[in-house]
Amino acid sequence: MTTTFQPPKGTKDILPDEMRKMLFVFDTCRAVFEKYGFVPLETPAFENFDLLAAKGGEAIKDEIYYFKDKADRELGLRFDFTVGTARFIANNPTLTKPFKRYAFGKVWRYDNPQAMRWREFYQLDVDTFGSAHVDADVECLACFSECLDKLGIKNHEIRVNNRILLKTYLLSQGVKEEKIPDWFRSIDKLDKIETKGVTAELEKKGFDKKIIKKVMAGLEQSNKKITALKKLEGYQELERLQTLAASYGIADKLMIDLSLVRGLEYYTSFVFEIAIKGIRVSVAGGGRYDKMVKAFGGADMPATGISFGLSRMIEYMEEQKIFPFEKTTTKLFIATVDDAAKPAALELASKLRSRGVATETDVMNRNLAKQFDYTNARGIPYMLVLGKQELTTKQLHLRNMKTGQERNVSLRDLSWVQSLS
Amino acid sequence: MTTTFQPPKGTKDILPDEMRKMLFVFDTCRAVFEKYGFVPLETPAFENFDLLAAKGGEAIKDEIYYFKDKADRELGLRFDFTVGTARFIANNPTLTKPFKRYAFGKVWRYDNPQAMRWREFYQLDVDTFGSAHVDADVECLACFSECLDKLGIKNHEIRVNNRILLKTYLLSQGVKEEKIPDWFRSIDKLDKIETKGVTAELEKKGFDKKIIKKVMAGLEQSNKKITALKKLEGYQELERLQTLAASYGIADKLMIDLSLVRGLEYYTSFVFEIAIKGIRVSVAGGGRYDKMVKAFGGADMPATGISFGLSRMIEYMEEQKIFPFEKTTTKLFIATVDDAAKPAALELASKLRSRGVATETDVMNRNLAKQFDYTNARGIPYMLVLGKQELTTKQLHLRNMKTGQERNVSLRDLSWVQSLS
Repeated sequence: MTTTFQPPKGTKDILPDEMRKMLFVFDTCRAVFEKYGFVPLETPAFENFDLLAAKGGEAIKDEIYYFKDKADRELGLRFDFTVGTARFIANNPTLTKPFKRYAFGKVWRYDNPQAMRWREFYQLDVDTFGSAHVDADVECLACFSECLDKLGIKNHEIRVNNRILLKTYLLSQGVKEEKIPDWFRSIDKLDKIETKGVTAELEKKGFDKKIIKKVMAGLEQSNKKITALKKLEGYQELERLQTLAASYGIADKLMIDLSLVRGLEYYTSFVFEIAIKGIRVSVAGGGRYDKMVKAFGGADMPATGISFGLSRMIEYMEEQKIFPFEKTTTKLFIATVDDAAKPAALELASKLRSRGVATETDVMNRNLAKQFDYTNARGIPYMLVLGKQELTTKQLHLRNMKTGQERNVSLRDLSWVQSLS
Repeated sequence: MTTTFQPPKGTKDILPDEMRKMLFVFDTCRAVFEKYGFVPLETPAFENFDLLAAKGGEAIKDEIYYFKDKADRELGLRFDFTVGTARFIANNPTLTKPFKRYAFGKVWRYDNPQAMRWREFYQLDVDTFGSAHVDADVECLACFSECLDKLGIKNHEIRVNNRILLKTYLLSQGVKEEKIPDWFRSIDKLDKIETKGVTAELEKKGFDKKIIKKVMAGLEQSNKKITALKKLEGYQELERLQTLAASYGIADKLMIDLSLVRGLEYYTSFVFEIAIKGIRVSVAGGGRYDKMVKAFGGADMPATGISFGLSRMIEYMEEQKIFPFEKTTTKLFIATVDDAAKPAALELASKLRSRGVATETDVMNRNLAKQFDYTNARGIPYMLVLGKQELTTKQLHLRNMKTGQERNVSLRDLSWVQSLS
């Protein structure tokens, strides 16, 4: 057979260089999550379709990987972690509250391929269940902000809105309640089509031009003139969010943006978006969703959370050369002149590993030149050669592969290994 | 709506306690893998069905999650990591060899539910591509053995066989070449139905009773009398495996077992099984599969690898109380008497976290008694209370939740935090 198989449409292999970065981001964030008391929870990669439809509607079928198992049960690959976790919360009413969990793994969406998005991608979330207070929201934001600091992305900004405030603001400007979703849908496009585009769209929908003008002007000024909204429902919570953010030391990163909507998703009040400053690349988003657990058959259960979009973040970190990586994790290659040197090489490798030095030996029985090539190609920084002579003298040449410099080191006294790390 | 949704049949949620253990195993093994020069590779969760069938045959459809995407492409959830990785190797002929990779994640099999196995489970693998030499096999074994040592499972044994040797042995005893798979299939059941059962099965298949008796006697003695096999094909490699294992320091864990078959899978020569000593619980298995990459359209590409069965291993580690875990990762809860103390609590929490102490604060705006209950329920070892008095005196009571003892600590000088970790 000579067919070559490719990864399925919309998916890709994650090569070691990229996967190391992914794991580095996970490790870094996980350490921060745990410092805030978040614990890991893992739900299945697929859920019963009824559950997914309970959140996304029957139409979600077109946007996910939908299938049946052999007993004709309708299933779908998870498109986020929120649905599975909310189902878990509904199933486990006696959990200690607040229940603060993090999740890391793959999710799948059957996106349009021309959007140039992958149909399989990683997410990294924190969510808090059980607290109706903005304290929980700010904690998630502070936690994510610290993750970004630790990853070396200190120049980020956190846009925050309360959709209840946006709604009461629109009502106060004369928008009719039943038209709110229509307005939300248009305002949500501000980032893409700007004030001009949104205005045109709202006019096309037939809304009063004067109202549109007033509303759009108000949205533009919201970050500066937030006091004008003081009497509206939803304002106080936003103010408390700012106060608490100051205590967490993230006030300077916070930006109230009354125009932030985040789609027509399940968010019930707060919505968040974290972006790289200046270039406005969004790296995280989330919000409060107080009604989902109940919709899944659970108790009334307030919930809030935020999620990293990992590929964009990793792309940015690559551009900025933020990853503190050597080309390879391996520090040293022990080349062997012949098979007789093998036992000594393996024993030396074991000793070096036990001292924390990642060490490789030849598993191909290749000649020295080829072992040298491998060491070079893999970017391993140091190389040793073991042969009859070295075994007799107990003296080795340690070669720095970058500079080409060699120095003598002892086979008996391994104190020189400290200089490698 | 009041339906309660459950995880799909055959799957389960992995609760924080278990997930922490899973991640602990992954972290521990990953550190070892990297010390041997293995790098992470991640392939998609599903593959084109043709690929899966190229390894498992069309019949594999009954044992996996099979589905079609919206363009009617036939897909299947991966049932191991080997297939995806071998496909990757076939796709990328210019990779530096040996290519040594590890993988961690979920795989799916549509197992019979009465077998009490989960249809979704985690695996952890290392595989080496490009080396036809037993050196690569032993490296994988040494690496896995060190993982087990590091996990606290020092009492493990490594059973090894070379299926080529088993085959030549059977031929030397008078078994006909075309009947070898039949014999393999029966001998594979030795662990379950013992010599008596295998003998009966072979007799039922109509084979010569004298040959059966000779063969079964030979298999029983193989570990002791391996020299009797010296002239047979496959023996030398097994001997070299033993020699190299001695250099790695794992010779005392190695056991040649001529009866080890490991199913009718794709293994071409060596097969391995690592078990807990005494109770013979198998925790890892693998072998050499030199023909898969070529079957997937790639070049001739020798390959060997080994895989951990994580759930059984974690179960054993739980029984043996090997996990070095506190009940929670959180070290300290800062309770607040009222909202006025919140800013100071959040600031203190930030300071403690920056000193490495995992700290939680109240996000529910609960009274002191309920904050105390939460600290208790979560098993958080220390608690502080912040109120007006503490903010005035700058003196705090640090409570050890296990013993109930309290001591005074300073709000200004935080040097006492060192005693917490």
